[in-house]
Amino acid sequence: QNQFDPTEHPHRRLNPLLNEYVLVSPHRAKRPWQGQEESVDIEVKPEYDKSCFLCKGNTRINGEVNPDYKNTFVFTNDFAALREGVPDVEQTDPLFSMHTERGTARVICFSPNHAKTLPELSVSQITNVVSTWQEQCQELSKTYNWVQVFENKGAVMGCSNPHPHGQIWAQNKLPSLVARKHTNLSNYYKQYGSSLLLDYAKREMELNERVVCVNDDWLVVVPYWAAWPFETLLLPRFSVTQMIELTDAQQSTLAEIIKNITTRYDNLFQCSFPYSMGWHGAPYDGQSHLFWQLHAQFLPPLLRSASVKKFMVGYEMMAEAQRDITPEQAATILKKQSLTHYKENTK
Amino acid sequence: QNQFDPTEHPHRRLNPLLNEYVLVSPHRAKRPWQGQEESVDIEVKPEYDKSCFLCKGNTRINGEVNPDYKNTFVFTNDFAALREGVPDVEQTDPLFSMHTERGTARVICFSPNHAKTLPELSVSQITNVVSTWQEQCQELSKTYNWVQVFENKGAVMGCSNPHPHGQIWAQNKLPSLVARKHTNLSNYYKQYGSSLLLDYAKREMELNERVVCVNDDWLVVVPYWAAWPFETLLLPRFSVTQMIELTDAQQSTLAEIIKNITTRYDNLFQCSFPYSMGWHGAPYDGQSHLFWQLHAQFLPPLLRSASVKKFMVGYEMMAEAQRDITPEQAATILKKQSLTHYKENTK
Ligand SMILES: O=P(O)(O)O[C@H]1O[C@H](CO)[C@@H](O)[C@H](O)[C@H]1O
Ligand SMILES: O=P(O)(O)O[C@H]1O[C@H](CO)[C@@H](O)[C@H](O)[C@H]1O
Repeated sequence: QNQFDPTEHPHRRLNPLLNEYVLVSPHRAKRPWQGQEESVDIEVKPEYDKSCFLCKGNTRINGEVNPDYKNTFVFTNDFAALREGVPDVEQTDPLFSMHTERGTARVICFSPNHAKTLPELSVSQITNVVSTWQEQCQELSKTYNWVQVFENKGAVMGCSNPHPHGQIWAQNKLPSLVARKHTNLSNYYKQYGSSLLLDYAKREMELNERVVCVNDDWLVVVPYWAAWPFETLLLPRFSVTQMIELTDAQQSTLAEIIKNITTRYDNLFQCSFPYSMGWHGAPYDGQSHLFWQLHAQFLPPLLRSASVKKFMVGYEMMAEAQRDITPEQAATILKKQSLTHYKENTK
Repeated sequence: QNQFDPTEHPHRRLNPLLNEYVLVSPHRAKRPWQGQEESVDIEVKPEYDKSCFLCKGNTRINGEVNPDYKNTFVFTNDFAALREGVPDVEQTDPLFSMHTERGTARVICFSPNHAKTLPELSVSQITNVVSTWQEQCQELSKTYNWVQVFENKGAVMGCSNPHPHGQIWAQNKLPSLVARKHTNLSNYYKQYGSSLLLDYAKREMELNERVVCVNDDWLVVVPYWAAWPFETLLLPRFSVTQMIELTDAQQSTLAEIIKNITTRYDNLFQCSFPYSMGWHGAPYDGQSHLFWQLHAQFLPPLLRSASVKKFMVGYEMMAEAQRDITPEQAATILKKQSLTHYKENTK
């Protein structure tokens, strides 16, 4: 009879972190694409751009002058979505419920070099980025319960400046997606007495079907429930709930694996691979949450080439995420990529 | 002291349908935009395009020839994400949980005229679209529990063909977002003994702050918890759980209000306004779900102009939806739009 083939038959996989499904329709990857193509940024960028708000010595929109920074540089977002000094208001009504929120939003420049994104920085330069994330979390966690570290890379991901940078938004309430993860991780811990993501890392290492790269401390896997075509999860192989707990050694091995996965990404379609990436860990609420495990997600939109992305629209916005190639196929493709950045090769 | 001003102070509003928040940061609308601009489609389209897979008499990719249709035309998607004949498989494991899913995906052409989108069709032509939705739901609900009617409009929303068309995907399981809505609507009903969306429609009519347009049977409102800049909710003013229950008269008034809101949308930035829209109602599982109320959502990406959209990336993908203008501001702008389509004006 008809045997189940994950690369042929539509099926749904459960994302246990959010307790929601993704529809996998692998046979659909064969359809021709006549829709929108993204523009590919092939412009060679200068190391310094005098019109860039993030380059050293330049004046930002609010009149402040950037210092002559050597590694990373952090400042408060000139158009922050969260800020201080907001009056406390709460309205509880089942249909019109709201509350004000205080917080801050910062920009973190990864390097003074305008032209180099993460995979093009050295491991020690990326380690500086990791330490800056840690310092920021240390500082902001004194005031806020939640510190969201993230990076939008590429114009297609809403990034309006190619200078390598990320963002940090901090606030008191757990954002909605984080609150759901919190609940699901906690439920798993109650039921099985262990950490979901630590268990998952072990299982993936054993199965070795979706693991893209690994070092002594970390692994990168295309999760079983990945929604975006080349989505990955960066997991620690040791128990750690928050960014601020990482040792110096763990920061270097983290930098190394970030260089590894982002180089594979750039090589995949020979372009500066766009994505949103971000970190989740236990909230800074003074409690110990053993069910949490620190981790990062890379959510990249490209599907077939540097110019053809996956659209999460219609069905996806109304019903549930849908993907065309299987996570195993995506992992195999990422595993095959070289660790020499394509720009190095063509030099 | 500092008085709360919704157009100045960051706050979070609860979406009771999904039980999740949206971060509203209205002061942020002032930031300059230097990022990606979408291309605006200003090409004047012919009424018939011989290279279009949806025009009458043309041959599709699988060799089938489209009939000489007069109103609407429905066929099975040549690259359907859901299909029949998939073997039954279920894997239950807390970390690797999956099941196969059977279903079908259809395309529905709204008109033989290649050049006209919904707002450019007459009310009676749109009524034909509504009846076709109803017929399809009638037919597919015999086999499937869930029938997802939706439309992706515009290249920026992943639509690969400008010929006016929508889609219908049908399957047995409730998609994740629908399952969450089901639970939240049911909880509200248990707690308050009434239908959340019927109560909400009444409250919005009274408040009259976010209502964009209304007729005897329907209203369109920018929901209190809207995530996309000009997101709207199309609600019935009477009790109705499923598309198949609509009377002929309710179908015409629905067509009328669809023409109204989509005309406002096109006039807003003087372009064919992109969006994903879709219908939710009680599942076709043979049970009566009085807590459900049929409704449509319009999720349009544009923020500032025909070429500048809102990016739901980084923070939004990792943490929670964020919007720049308030729902009340969006409603005021939509209310001001003319009901004469801008193309009619420039004729
Ligand atoms: O089916 P289409 O129009 O080819 O494809 C479009 O709509 C689908 C359903 O929302 C999405 O899964 C696709 O990513 C999008 O490009
Ligand atoms: O803060 P930026 O880089 O100007 O803006 C970008 O990232 C933000 C956080 O993910 C999003 O809210 C914006 O839509 C996006 O354009």
